[in-house]
Amino acid sequence: MNDQEVTILRDTARLLITCPDRPGIVAAVSQFIFSHGANIIELDQYSTDPEGGMFFMRLAFHSPHLGVSKETLTASFQSVIATPFQMNWVLRYAWPLPRMAIMVSRQEHCLMELLWRWSRGELPCEIPLVISNHPDLREAARHFDVPFHYVPVSTDKENRLESESRVLDLITGQTEGVILARYMQILSPAFIETYARPIINIHHSFLPAFAGADPYRQAFERGVKVIGATAHYVTPELDAGPIVRQDVAHVSHKHNTEDLKRIGRDLERHVLVHAVHAHLEDRVIVHGNKTVVF
Amino acid sequence: MNDQEVTILRDTARLLITCPDRPGIVAAVSQFIFSHGANIIELDQYSTDPEGGMFFMRLAFHSPHLGVSKETLTASFQSVIATPFQMNWVLRYAWPLPRMAIMVSRQEHCLMELLWRWSRGELPCEIPLVISNHPDLREAARHFDVPFHYVPVSTDKENRLESESRVLDLITGQTEGVILARYMQILSPAFIETYARPIINIHHSFLPAFAGADPYRQAFERGVKVIGATAHYVTPELDAGPIVRQDVAHVSHKHNTEDLKRIGRDLERHVLVHAVHAHLEDRVIVHGNKTVVF
Amino acid sequence: MNDQEVTILRDTARLLITCPDRPGIVAAVSQFIFSHGANIIELDQYSTDPEGGMFFMRLAFHSPHLGVSKETLTASFQSVIATPFQMNWVLRYAWPLPRMAIMVSRQEHCLMELLWRWSRGELPCEIPLVISNHPDLREAARHFDVPFHYVPVSTDKENRLESESRVLDLITGQTEGVILARYMQILSPAFIETYARPIINIHHSFLPAFAGADPYRQAFERGVKVIGATAHYVTPELDAGPIVRQDVAHVSHKHNTEDLKRIGRDLERHVLVHAVHAHLEDRVIVHGNKTVVF
Amino acid sequence: MNDQEVTILRDTARLLITCPDRPGIVAAVSQFIFSHGANIIELDQYSTDPEGGMFFMRLAFHSPHLGVSKETLTASFQSVIATPFQMNWVLRYAWPLPRMAIMVSRQEHCLMELLWRWSRGELPCEIPLVISNHPDLREAARHFDVPFHYVPVSTDKENRLESESRVLDLITGQTEGVILARYMQILSPAFIETYARPIINIHHSFLPAFAGADPYRQAFERGVKVIGATAHYVTPELDAGPIVRQDVAHVSHKHNTEDLKRIGRDLERHVLVHAVHAHLEDRVIVHGNKTVVF
Repeated sequence: MNDQEVTILRDTARLLITCPDRPGIVAAVSQFIFSHGANIIELDQYSTDPEGGMFFMRLAFHSPHLGVSKETLTASFQSVIATPFQMNWVLRYAWPLPRMAIMVSRQEHCLMELLWRWSRGELPCEIPLVISNHPDLREAARHFDVPFHYVPVSTDKENRLESESRVLDLITGQTEGVILARYMQILSPAFIETYARPIINIHHSFLPAFAGADPYRQAFERGVKVIGATAHYVTPELDAGPIVRQDVAHVSHKHNTEDLKRIGRDLERHVLVHAVHAHLEDRVIVHGNKTVVF
Repeated sequence: MNDQEVTILRDTARLLITCPDRPGIVAAVSQFIFSHGANIIELDQYSTDPEGGMFFMRLAFHSPHLGVSKETLTASFQSVIATPFQMNWVLRYAWPLPRMAIMVSRQEHCLMELLWRWSRGELPCEIPLVISNHPDLREAARHFDVPFHYVPVSTDKENRLESESRVLDLITGQTEGVILARYMQILSPAFIETYARPIINIHHSFLPAFAGADPYRQAFERGVKVIGATAHYVTPELDAGPIVRQDVAHVSHKHNTEDLKRIGRDLERHVLVHAVHAHLEDRVIVHGNKTVVF
Repeated sequence: MNDQEVTILRDTARLLITCPDRPGIVAAVSQFIFSHGANIIELDQYSTDPEGGMFFMRLAFHSPHLGVSKETLTASFQSVIATPFQMNWVLRYAWPLPRMAIMVSRQEHCLMELLWRWSRGELPCEIPLVISNHPDLREAARHFDVPFHYVPVSTDKENRLESESRVLDLITGQTEGVILARYMQILSPAFIETYARPIINIHHSFLPAFAGADPYRQAFERGVKVIGATAHYVTPELDAGPIVRQDVAHVSHKHNTEDLKRIGRDLERHVLVHAVHAHLEDRVIVHGNKTVVF
Repeated sequence: MNDQEVTILRDTARLLITCPDRPGIVAAVSQFIFSHGANIIELDQYSTDPEGGMFFMRLAFHSPHLGVSKETLTASFQSVIATPFQMNWVLRYAWPLPRMAIMVSRQEHCLMELLWRWSRGELPCEIPLVISNHPDLREAARHFDVPFHYVPVSTDKENRLESESRVLDLITGQTEGVILARYMQILSPAFIETYARPIINIHHSFLPAFAGADPYRQAFERGVKVIGATAHYVTPELDAGPIVRQDVAHVSHKHNTEDLKRIGRDLERHVLVHAVHAHLEDRVIVHGNKTVVF
């Protein structure tokens, strides 16, 4: 990230809003932002139904001339705007960059794509650590000067809890989110609840088709003509969390399971990176089990 | 279809072969074709594994100088080539054009796309009749001078059998295949078995996701970011037959169920037409529950 | 179009704005809309640069409770908002539907796609007439109950002016725009200037590649692996107007010029329909020789 | 590349044929291969016209049981098959792997994608050296243990010749081809003629649009809605060589030139890798200024 990009991020804040739709929301919010001396640079909004539906808004603004602290702004917005309009909302400053942990197993392609783009300044986050249940990718992380933590996971249930506990020690309070870059372990509901921050997973099929294990083998056996990848937030129910992004590739009878895996790797890299990017730019609002991606 | 295209089709035959792979198949088949005075114009082959796998081949040839009848050629090929190589095979002449019935319910988009392309000569078949369980599209068929048969289907089981019986009367011996262009009735296993010819269906999802009823509503509720359509041969198990072609479109939170249906209609038209086209050019070999599409 | 869709359109208005970017625009505009009792249903905005750039906005609102006439609203908006912010702007009511003429030559595919979607209520416009320099598609237009005008064009320059004059007589004051659905004549700069309304053309290549005549032959001879189609507004300079939409298809050595034309027809239908749809929903702002498509 | 993959490659040979079409070619070639104890594993053929057109064929076969040397096989094929059928042809053994030099300037994305896939065994070649006119990517090459040669190029014409001479010293006899992975210098016709081996370039536009310098800026200024990348063989005429592969991405008014470059980098990586892969598997036949890619 060059100096100019850093300067822009330092001056950028984003407001994400979910509330019942009714007239006057945009006017009230934009007037509030303007009256505090900020300039709207992006505004996206969506309503499921102007009459009685839900309203979603993402508003990015330049904050260099804000005369108030985040705390004051937050308190003021809550009382003047959010309470009257019954909003679920969050204000995020683009700087400092959020810290994202990457969890990975043996396959490197998603990890490499993330680290490579991150090293070029294309992913606006810090990556303070990589955690793996295998030691294989230690060198790959080192190449990008990212600390690597090997936390083995056995099939023994008690050991699994201990492993998850070690991971929680590494990430709690140190990260604002986790990226599962082909981490081949299922995280327990307790882990997800305790961490209580977004966890983005890449699943190697176009969900809901081929949830669970070995989707490329499933795809081969069903003889599908497209394969896909799905990035979603992790919830306690396996492969059922809110979908952020999906993409597919055309395949044919010529492709055996190994070919599907190879083609799928490119899809996974692409889909995961774009989902993480949208997440980092605060473009994703989760509502129920679905997402609004602005 | 112009005269030149008709002339080409009159002179074209296609050989579809499935057999255990072993050295010498291409040499034997191409030598046979050559020795009978025909010129290979397309040859596609695929082997699941050169050592012990299955071999598939499609060979199109120009037959104007064939000195033998189809019967003689068939008998000769069987004894000289097919028996020694343990082939499942079929020889099809591109002319006369195969007769395809279209079955439809109330939605016109797939029917219109098929009839429109057919009227332009883009689908090499005859369409001797359209059958529907609703009278709505009678006029649409008439516009293309295709006879329309209204065969109502009630929910009463006995009536269903009677309806299927009437459909069988219309198509048996009169058609070489059926296209289900959004026919919203499930055909009974008995019907499928009795007809014993290919039936191509368009399903409005990327199978195996969202099999069964109302896939766009299912897709909306799951919050997927791609929707799809699947053309497949009909088998007794619902939505589980060999897939011929699939395609998808990207969608977002902005699209409600009606939008998905609208976007889906374009996918369905496109996928069904291309699947039917491949079928009509004898490009599809069914093997088990999968297809080879050359 | 069903009654509910008509009701929604009757209550919908859209505001398109172009002006120098500066703080407070969204606040001022949305406050204005709100204070007149309207509810914003869609808002899109884009700035080339928050510091000194150009600002573009599309705002759709429900107007049933507007207490003022269009004239009053327009005058008020001009004085209160548009003048202070130096805006180029337009207010359009979605109803009555804009009247679009279609001009066509001998190829029917784009015309049929437009008329078919229009007859289904998918294109929010009236189509009061089809004009062609050939009589071939008279029947196609009649099928959709659209008046067809045959206005021959010879290569003689004087006759060309006379033909254009006849076309102008047919469309001036009777239409809000023209769709060139593979109209194979070049409209003179004088025609374009006199008509002074949007003219949308479909060009059968991914411009700027293969401008001018016979782009599929050009594409074949260059051996490209993708072909495309481009919908653009017509300007006096041939094939150089602001691009609204483009799409492409992959092709290979197997495709001869006729194949490219066949594949291209699907692209053209698709691209033109989507461009026209965006135009009709007032989603396109022309700025210089480029478009903002919200 | 694992041992099994190496074993397969050691036993694989490919025959590429171009000749006037006439009956009997497939029969003659396949019979020749069979009679020498080899098993055809892939066969693709294409004819521009069965009557008087050009015929192209790629045939891959397993050679473990070949009883003859490459020299004997070649001589025999020439006299028995190639001469009677007036063939341009080449026989290539997949092993030893061809040696490909990569030439690069300052941008790393194409280089990294190539080296990363190569290191995973996904590109069947040796990469004995990387040559650059800048020292910036020395470390990137070293990470993959590939020798890096810095050969500066000045704008001075005499120096350019000297630089090209140094490059020729490095690659002549040491490589079977060159990959220009965003090498920002124009190679002289003399260089291309002297080297006389395939040189694959990635151009950052969908040629023939935006040939020459700074295509993303050109694309931005024209306001196109798709951008592309083109992999082609280098010929003396700039950006005019036979196209191997192209792909595009949709863009919008939101994307400035920097965004187009960022999106384009992904296209370039993807298109170049797939073109190189097709080249390495001997899937590309150049005919005139076009390619057949099997």
